[in-house]
Amino acid sequence: MKMDVSLLISIEYLAVIVSSIYGVLLAARKGMDVMGVFAVAFAVAFGGGTLRDLFLDRTPLFWIGNPHYPMITLGIAVFAGPVLKLVNRIKPYLLLPDALGMALFAITGTAYSLEAYPSWFIAAMMGTITGTFGGVLGDVICNDVPSLFTPSPLNATCAFTGCWVYLIVLSLGETPKEIAMIAAILVIVLFRLAAVKWNWCFPALRETPHR
Amino acid sequence: MKMDVSLLISIEYLAVIVSSIYGVLLAARKGMDVMGVFAVAFAVAFGGGTLRDLFLDRTPLFWIGNPHYPMITLGIAVFAGPVLKLVNRIKPYLLLPDALGMALFAITGTAYSLEAYPSWFIAAMMGTITGTFGGVLGDVICNDVPSLFTPSPLNATCAFTGCWVYLIVLSLGETPKEIAMIAAILVIVLFRLAAVKWNWCFPALRETPHR
Amino acid sequence: MKMDVSLLISIEYLAVIVSSIYGVLLAARKGMDVMGVFAVAFAVAFGGGTLRDLFLDRTPLFWIGNPHYPMITLGIAVFAGPVLKLVNRIKPYLLLPDALGMALFAITGTAYSLEAYPSWFIAAMMGTITGTFGGVLGDVICNDVPSLFTPSPLNATCAFTGCWVYLIVLSLGETPKEIAMIAAILVIVLFRLAAVKWNWCFPALRETPHR
Repeated sequence: MKMDVSLLISIEYLAVIVSSIYGVLLAARKGMDVMGVFAVAFAVAFGGGTLRDLFLDRTPLFWIGNPHYPMITLGIAVFAGPVLKLVNRIKPYLLLPDALGMALFAITGTAYSLEAYPSWFIAAMMGTITGTFGGVLGDVICNDVPSLFTPSPLNATCAFTGCWVYLIVLSLGETPKEIAMIAAILVIVLFRLAAVKWNWCFPALRETPHR
Repeated sequence: MKMDVSLLISIEYLAVIVSSIYGVLLAARKGMDVMGVFAVAFAVAFGGGTLRDLFLDRTPLFWIGNPHYPMITLGIAVFAGPVLKLVNRIKPYLLLPDALGMALFAITGTAYSLEAYPSWFIAAMMGTITGTFGGVLGDVICNDVPSLFTPSPLNATCAFTGCWVYLIVLSLGETPKEIAMIAAILVIVLFRLAAVKWNWCFPALRETPHR
Repeated sequence: MKMDVSLLISIEYLAVIVSSIYGVLLAARKGMDVMGVFAVAFAVAFGGGTLRDLFLDRTPLFWIGNPHYPMITLGIAVFAGPVLKLVNRIKPYLLLPDALGMALFAITGTAYSLEAYPSWFIAAMMGTITGTFGGVLGDVICNDVPSLFTPSPLNATCAFTGCWVYLIVLSLGETPKEIAMIAAILVIVLFRLAAVKWNWCFPALRETPHR
């Protein structure tokens, strides 16, 4: 049990770093200053988990209980210049941290929800919200239409699928939690990368014309 | 007392269905895909009640405690095509579910607030927020300026008035809760429909010119 | 201790009035009606403190526990015409209530956070969020890009600095809380006014060009 908690925290840690970097990349595109970069990175990295904690009534919020989380984000924002230079060499440069952050947060959301409430459907929804809300918030702050809501490569669907993978693998009796987590993270990241590469989209719903 | 609770839950149930349909109609106008439709329907149907539960510190959130609520919304989003065809025959097609959802949620917000805090003013405000926030969120996601905030036919005012009707009728000694609820819902829906039909607006506040 | 609480409440009181007036000024610029004016004034005046209370899990929310707060805001919104005439004589007319409201709320956020959690960094962040979130919300509702996130005169930085001033002065042994508060409020207001007057900005982060 102890190990489970420390595993969840390690994943959260990584998700914070990866999402902060994604937030910095997002803010840099818009030519923001260091405070704006921090605000966007903070919103991207902590928006999903904060909503999760508020919805599940978890106290204290994960970044209040771990004050070094926002400090890391502040550090990344202050050294955004060098961070960007480093990250910029990797391509496709926005996609991987985005997919990984989404996957990591989605799993924490599912796991924490399952601790508090038995419903699998709620756990999968909470995972999806935790995984995607930070990105939506980042888009809103940067005044873009959130890509989550327009026909674009599958995103929330990848998170939702991965949450179910986690729940199903976990229910297969003897599986250790670690295996379920790694399987789910892999599914989400690969599903998302494939969706972007081959442009998998749902069709747009068309309104029946007025009569 | 038992009956009161089940009445409130029935109203909430209907509000969720009606608001989900309104959300689907909103999202379809913007040509979203099924995930976007679900997200908008979820935001419209659960935004107000979630804010109410967070503000009143009610645990668990009403849709976490009733996991079939978001399942219904998911079902409506998945079958959005047929739902739209069905709904499209009714005119004015966006207006009635909007007004009814607002009325139903407004009453739950007022009733739950009154359970927790004695202030009538807070109860009326909480009802208005519960009734209107989902629609505001839907507008924001669809990147429209929320109609709540621009001079347009009375909206929040109808909800606010209806909440006071509920509070006053309820305080008239012997009145059963059901009567107060039905009266308030009728007032909100009719007031809103009349406001749209005859274009009742408040005048816009003009800034005094600079000197 | 009793006095400390009443001091905090007086500051909150003033912050609510000042922020409501700022919200009315903001809404009047956009030609909103009385309901829109109230909604914007409410969001500006209560957005930061509500987020603070939700994040710190304080119950009831400060405006639910003090129902006369939103009543004051409603009064200011209803009499927005005369209020605007009165306020309009003072120049620079949007700046001072904005800076003062930010300073007052920032101090309440820092103080309440310190009561609940020992971390100074979290207290300073909570103060900054409490002080700035209302303004961000007001900008978002008025459909402006929040000035907090674009290169513009220092804003959140002033709040953040003032929160640290409060924390440091407070830790200097014998200092009464009142002195720390007044010092911090002065630093925030003067810093902000100076930043606007001499246009102190952080440079924009530029994205390293693609290669």
